Parts: sequence; structure tokens; C-alpha cells
Amino acid sequence: MTGSTSKAVVLFSGGLDSTTLLAKALAAGFEVYALSFNYGQRHQSELKAALKLSKDMGAKDHKVISLDLRAIGGSALTDEEIDVPEVASDGIPVTYVPARNTVFLSIAMGYAEVLGAHSIFIGVNAVDYSGYPDCRPEYIAAFQQMADLATKEGVEGESIRIETPLVDLTKAEIIKLGLELGVDYQKTVSCYQADSEGVACGKCDSCRLRQEGFRAAGVQDPTRYRVIELRGSHN
Amino acid sequence: MTGSTSKAVVLFSGGLDSTTLLAKALAAGFEVYALSFNYGQRHQSELKAALKLSKDMGAKDHKVISLDLRAIGGSALTDEEIDVPEVASDGIPVTYVPARNTVFLSIAMGYAEVLGAHSIFIGVNAVDYSGYPDCRPEYIAAFQQMADLATKEGVEGESIRIETPLVDLTKAEIIKLGLELGVDYQKTVSCYQADSEGVACGKCDSCRLRQEGFRAAGVQDPTRYRVIELRGSHN
Repeated sequence: MTGSTSKAVVLFSGGLDSTTLLAKALAAGFEVYALSFNYGQRHQSELKAALKLSKDMGAKDHKVISLDLRAIGGSALTDEEIDVPEVASDGIPVTYVPARNTVFLSIAMGYAEVLGAHSIFIGVNAVDYSGYPDCRPEYIAAFQQMADLATKEGVEGESIRIETPLVDLTKAEIIKLGLELGVDYQKTVSCYQADSEGVACGKCDSCRLRQEGFRAAGVQDPTRYRVIELRGSHN
Repeated sequence: MTGSTSKAVVLFSGGLDSTTLLAKALAAGFEVYALSFNYGQRHQSELKAALKLSKDMGAKDHKVISLDLRAIGGSALTDEEIDVPEVASDGIPVTYVPARNTVFLSIAMGYAEVLGAHSIFIGVNAVDYSGYPDCRPEYIAAFQQMADLATKEGVEGESIRIETPLVDLTKAEIIKLGLELGVDYQKTVSCYQADSEGVACGKCDSCRLRQEGFRAAGVQDPTRYRVIELRGSHN
């Protein structure tokens, strides 16, 4: 079914985590098929950055699937009437997109089946994002069981493995891993409300986690922010 | 979380099975939110029929989600280079769309979460369509387990139930059930290559199963075919 090189589908947004993930899959020797979604998210600049990054890093192909999740609403990332929060939230944040990882993994599963790929990489992380139910290892294990029963491959031959190499890493550990693998983080966009050039707000949840990650890793943050970060500079 | 009437998301294509499913959910007293997909399928007339049917039958709302599965290819229903077969196939048919039910159920799960609905109806059937891995009861059970771990609702409160009332019925039994519930099957479109008015080819797998269903049910087939059915008329 596979040739001399194994194929992998990598769920890739162009953010810090999934760029590290892409580097990891390439370093492991996979022929990488990156998969992104245009799902009505506010941060369209992520997609621009993602297309350039995957090409520069050596992915074999990169598909962008259009999927209008705005029709069902329910998240600050896809619903214009819900503001992106700039203070930390308790519990499940409003930036949670209902069923997003399940939808993305499902489409990746279909793509893997068409390609004859037996691996799907997803950059879920249970350490920094513990508020999202679909980032937990027990969720991934349940998805794996379902996938084994859902596909032609699972029924007729070798099944598809869901790979989550970042699941137990802190943000600082992810950054250190990426730097070892040669990732240029200045080219990645994590911000929920980045501008068209990929310049970050420096204030949303995602920017804050990223800043703390670079601080904890003891590495200079190469991110371009449009708000000068004054925290800590007055004393 | 719910009001006096329970909400249900019903995966609804406008075909014979899912129209019977919609009638079943309405008869059970649910406030019904129909969900259809525009996924690059050839039979666009299904969607037209679906929108009219759900309104006539009394659904509360009907959303159509655009999702371009042509980008990943792999099925005669979405790939222009694969012909729709007109002879019965062994094993998994080429009209199988990779991961389709998983993708549809995942989006339905997100929609249910936004609505506060606790039921999702899907018209999978393990009797006439045994070639499709994602129509089997064991697949649905595995999806249910995954769903319990994937959503805010499953984590914070009452989970979402996947309802499959047609799973063990023959096509003839589905037709009899629908007729009891008042379904007008002339308005439904099952054909994989129906024309823009919903007139069926009478030759594809889906048409054949439907014809056999009406025959086995001992009921006149009200479907409009563009090919006059001559089988059996010469002797």
C-alpha cells in the first residue's frame, strides 16, 4: 500500500504548535501532506503563513479545505458577535470551536484514506490548553478506536494511527523541540486576531500563552507584536 | 439546558432514508434542526428537494454547510474522474465517500452543542449498505464513546446521543415506516445522478436499491425516472 517512504497527513495551521508538529513529522522521515482549514476563522493570516511555511519546510503537498463553520456559530473565533477575550478565562474558553478537532481529524482521516497514508499528526496539547475537552489523551484514544471501525483501511487492512507528539509537552518544551528541529518561529502566527501581515495583538489568550512559553524556555520571543509589551518594564 | 421541547439535529439529505428519519424525529416530538451538506456531490438536486421537504414537514430550521470534499477526492460521488457505476459492486463501492459519516456526525455534534440539543439522528443502515464501514452499529457505538469525551456538554453535563432508528430495517421496512408516518416519497431524491428537477436515472446502485425496496414492500414506486423501466415487462 505504501511506497518506500511512509505518508503522513499533518493538521497544520501555521501556528507555533502545528509548525513544531510539521517539523517533527518531517524529521521522522514521513512524506508530509499538510492539511489546513478555511473555516471562517478570524485569523486568515494564519493560512497565508501556513502555505509559505509548509513549502519552505519541505512538505510534499498542502491542501486547504473550505468549511463554513460560521453557519453553526458558537465560538469567538467564528462568530462575529462574540468578542475575543483579552483576560484569562476559567473553564472552557469562548474561543473553543464546537467539535473542531473532531471535524478536522475526520477530514484528515478521509484524506489519509485517499492517499494511502497510515499516520495523522495533530498538535493537541493537554498541558497548556486543559480547558478544551478535545485536546485530552482520552479523547484521542476514543477517536482512534472509532477510526479503526470507520474506514476502508481499518476494515480491510492496516488502520490509521493518530499521532500526538506534543500532547504532554509544556509550551516551553514545544519551543525548545522546535528550535532543535530548526523551526523559525518568527514565521508562525498564533494570535487569534493577527493582522493581514501576521502581526500579533500581544493580548489574546493565544498570544499570552506564547509569550509565557518563550519566557519559560529562556529564549528571546521573535514574534512581531503590534502592541509594545510594557508588562514588567516599569519596575 | 433544554426547554419544554427537546431539540434534535437530523442529518438530512432529502433521500428516501433520511426523509423517513426526519419524519420519525418529528413524530417522536423533537424540535427538529435539519442539517445538510453541500460537499461537491454530483446530485445537487438532492439539496433542493431537501430544503423544500424539511419546510413542508415542519422542521424548525434547516442549515446547509458548505464543505469542499472534492479537494481530497477518492469517490465517484465527488470526483469527476471516477464514473458512477451502473452494475452492482462487490465489497466497498466506489460511491463510498471517505470518512463521510464521521465528518457529518462531527459537524452535527458541534451544531448540537451550539443549540443545546442532546440528540443527533442519522439514517445509517446496516442491512442494504453493508459495504460501507461507517454504517455499522459498532462504528456508531465507537463514535458515541468518542462524542462523550469530545464536547463541553459531555464533560460538563448531559452528553449527546446518536440515534439510528433505521439501522436494522430493510429498505422495504423503511418505506413502510415512512408511509405510516405520512412521507410523500415522490418528493425525495435518492439517485446519485438525478437531473436538476430531481428526476432519477433508474440505473445507479441507489436507484436499484430503492426500486427493490418498493417492490419488496409491495407498494407502487412513485419515483420519477428518466429511463422507462422495462425489466420484467416482456414475459
